[in-house]
Amino acid sequence: MLTELKREAYEANRGLPAHGLVRLNFGNAIAVDRRRGIIAIKPSGVDYDRLRPADMVLVDLDGKRVEGRLRPSSDTPTHLVIYRAFGHVGGVAHTHSAHATSFAQAGLAIPVLGTTHCDFFHGPVPVTRELTRREIAGSYEAETGRVIVQRFARLDPLEIPAVLVMRHGPFTWGRTAAEAVENAVALEFCAKLAAQTLGLRPTGLKFPAALLDRHFNRKHGAGAYYGQR
Amino acid sequence: MLTELKREAYEANRGLPAHGLVRLNFGNAIAVDRRRGIIAIKPSGVDYDRLRPADMVLVDLDGKRVEGRLRPSSDTPTHLVIYRAFGHVGGVAHTHSAHATSFAQAGLAIPVLGTTHCDFFHGPVPVTRELTRREIAGSYEAETGRVIVQRFARLDPLEIPAVLVMRHGPFTWGRTAAEAVENAVALEFCAKLAAQTLGLRPTGLKFPAALLDRHFNRKHGAGAYYGQR
Amino acid sequence: MLTELKREAYEANRGLPAHGLVRLNFGNAIAVDRRRGIIAIKPSGVDYDRLRPADMVLVDLDGKRVEGRLRPSSDTPTHLVIYRAFGHVGGVAHTHSAHATSFAQAGLAIPVLGTTHCDFFHGPVPVTRELTRREIAGSYEAETGRVIVQRFARLDPLEIPAVLVMRHGPFTWGRTAAEAVENAVALEFCAKLAAQTLGLRPTGLKFPAALLDRHFNRKHGAGAYYGQR
Amino acid sequence: MLTELKREAYEANRGLPAHGLVRLNFGNAIAVDRRRGIIAIKPSGVDYDRLRPADMVLVDLDGKRVEGRLRPSSDTPTHLVIYRAFGHVGGVAHTHSAHATSFAQAGLAIPVLGTTHCDFFHGPVPVTRELTRREIAGSYEAETGRVIVQRFARLDPLEIPAVLVMRHGPFTWGRTAAEAVENAVALEFCAKLAAQTLGLRPTGLKFPAALLDRHFNRKHGAGAYYGQR
Repeated sequence: MLTELKREAYEANRGLPAHGLVRLNFGNAIAVDRRRGIIAIKPSGVDYDRLRPADMVLVDLDGKRVEGRLRPSSDTPTHLVIYRAFGHVGGVAHTHSAHATSFAQAGLAIPVLGTTHCDFFHGPVPVTRELTRREIAGSYEAETGRVIVQRFARLDPLEIPAVLVMRHGPFTWGRTAAEAVENAVALEFCAKLAAQTLGLRPTGLKFPAALLDRHFNRKHGAGAYYGQR
Repeated sequence: MLTELKREAYEANRGLPAHGLVRLNFGNAIAVDRRRGIIAIKPSGVDYDRLRPADMVLVDLDGKRVEGRLRPSSDTPTHLVIYRAFGHVGGVAHTHSAHATSFAQAGLAIPVLGTTHCDFFHGPVPVTRELTRREIAGSYEAETGRVIVQRFARLDPLEIPAVLVMRHGPFTWGRTAAEAVENAVALEFCAKLAAQTLGLRPTGLKFPAALLDRHFNRKHGAGAYYGQR
Repeated sequence: MLTELKREAYEANRGLPAHGLVRLNFGNAIAVDRRRGIIAIKPSGVDYDRLRPADMVLVDLDGKRVEGRLRPSSDTPTHLVIYRAFGHVGGVAHTHSAHATSFAQAGLAIPVLGTTHCDFFHGPVPVTRELTRREIAGSYEAETGRVIVQRFARLDPLEIPAVLVMRHGPFTWGRTAAEAVENAVALEFCAKLAAQTLGLRPTGLKFPAALLDRHFNRKHGAGAYYGQR
Repeated sequence: MLTELKREAYEANRGLPAHGLVRLNFGNAIAVDRRRGIIAIKPSGVDYDRLRPADMVLVDLDGKRVEGRLRPSSDTPTHLVIYRAFGHVGGVAHTHSAHATSFAQAGLAIPVLGTTHCDFFHGPVPVTRELTRREIAGSYEAETGRVIVQRFARLDPLEIPAVLVMRHGPFTWGRTAAEAVENAVALEFCAKLAAQTLGLRPTGLKFPAALLDRHFNRKHGAGAYYGQR
């Protein structure tokens, strides 16, 4: 069932360690089938090396397992909240990649300091608010999804396809699972550049809005002229 | 004799350079057979590349070589003290991995700054006290084990399966030698995240106890729901 | 047509990820045929893995595509301005390599702090001025080339074969495309050394002109005695 | 002629990029035949990838080429001064490895901050004095050797088998060329640990002499008990 969706989720999950974004088994990615209301996700706590496409678990909108012998990732409820709230998203990735996670642990957004950032993210990559004690004690993983969605109340998730969960790490998304992984790679690289830039100049440099817009739009805007279109 | 124990120790020792935790031949791991009161350990000063399972040295509780042509690691007395004091431990690993060792050299515990840390260590990873001049001049390696055990007088070694020996480097342990190595990998990654986080925000951020407990317990507690159980 | 030029450009472009200078597809290199007034350049937004020599796009001095099915890199106008202004240049490379880009994002030149730098660059590697709002809104990529050329009004591009475009990243050049790539590798390494040196000693150390001249000239001067000449 | 010596020098030179100590072709190593008064050294400016044992150049005590088609490394005079002054040395290595070079560029010795350092170097790794303008203009490479020897006037080169040439980079040595390379690997790792430690605790921690002696001597002293002796 849904062999193609499982294959897409599998490729995305394999991409995470291949790009150096996960150590041990911190991290996972989902692929979304909006028509059927089903996601394919990595099974919980399984080594990336031993993962096969058939191991992907199919879960419906309510988090009920539709197919698969293994238990889905414990982060499944977070992914489901994102998928339901962000309409055009076809894939979500979660990693503990080192530089992005360091910003999350410091409780700091990743500021716009260079054009590399603008090529992917149309503004700073925001950090969620602290979870309350009640949220931590309750449906912790679903609450994590909710603070992400809350943080985007006034932001467009397609213009800034990434967030830092405070003290935890990044989630990224995209129109496909592969794009979510690409955004995770870009996020980690931008976080590394930002940390190094702040090391050289601790106060940073205010970034001109015109340059941010130009770079984002030449790749993603209506008149985009980057790539083979 | 004890082929399986030697194989387990061998795999653990090979895992250290494979995970980038040792350069040259700094580091070693042991596997423990509690029923027989015997450990298998790496021979001293032998290159990891040339290591074979049969090279592992068998040593009893008093540090006497039971089998093996080669001399055991000079850290053997440290491992033995840990093994005798920490009842449920089946393996111990010692590395000079770069970030954990930097905290040890700075004489600083690794603080809890993120959920990655909580997934493995239920609190800060402590640093031992300074050895006295007399302890350094005496049975130096056994004394190193003793200050580790002393440091855990009020800590549970299974809740925090790692320590930093001041000015030296980390030791980690687990129910098996493989788990000790996994904890060494996690420790180095958490130390890296902590150093980077402190680089971005030198004072750190106080971590909520509720979040620490939630993450540790969802993986290790009585009601754990992480992985395939 | 111009198979050799396309091969040279292809090899240079492949060298960028091979030397760890580009992630995703940030970066490109050109090879120049001055006699014919033609450059070979990477197509826009194509993955390095799938690149073949025949994919290289041939462009004339005015930026008109002379041969090639694919659209040339969006950075083509920048390369063309450099090629027209810097007479002896046979290749140009552009990367987002992490340390050089961090200096560009901080708006700081890479200072001369060691002899490794002197072996390649006869002075600090300069950073361009900020683009005006009008320049950003206009022919952005050509304007980027113009501020580079402006910055070299009183510098010799063969003595300092590199520049940092403010907030963006480095461009390097050389007598051949291969030399441009070699200079990109050297620049990234010197930027890394400089960042680490400033980490140890934030004010840096003033560098003696005599030592800068000696190192640059023993490799590049009239009486050069480095290498097999 | 002297095939074994050339093989030893070749293996040492290949070890430098293999251990990540050189980028491009910064770096070289020599092997010494004291009985014949001859050294084997890397040819100048030749890529490590294309190097063969037969390319090694044989040079006598006065720097005269005894055998070899290629010109010896431009650093040959530095190596010769070291070889003549340090009696028990059988090999010397020179690299621009990133962390050790950063200390050299900052004009700072590598302080003793941990036991890893003590296992190889019986005290801080010193930095040479600034060369005078006259020394730079004269026999620059031989003068570089002379300030190294000067720096060891009151130090034992076998107890501290490494030095940082100010603003330039490290030289290491040993009883064989392979040991010189091993010391270059250890030096870079200790420099990395020291830089990271100072990042966590900028003032460092004074290191107890008793611990330094214990670690150095258990490996190198008269009663050494490390390794298979």
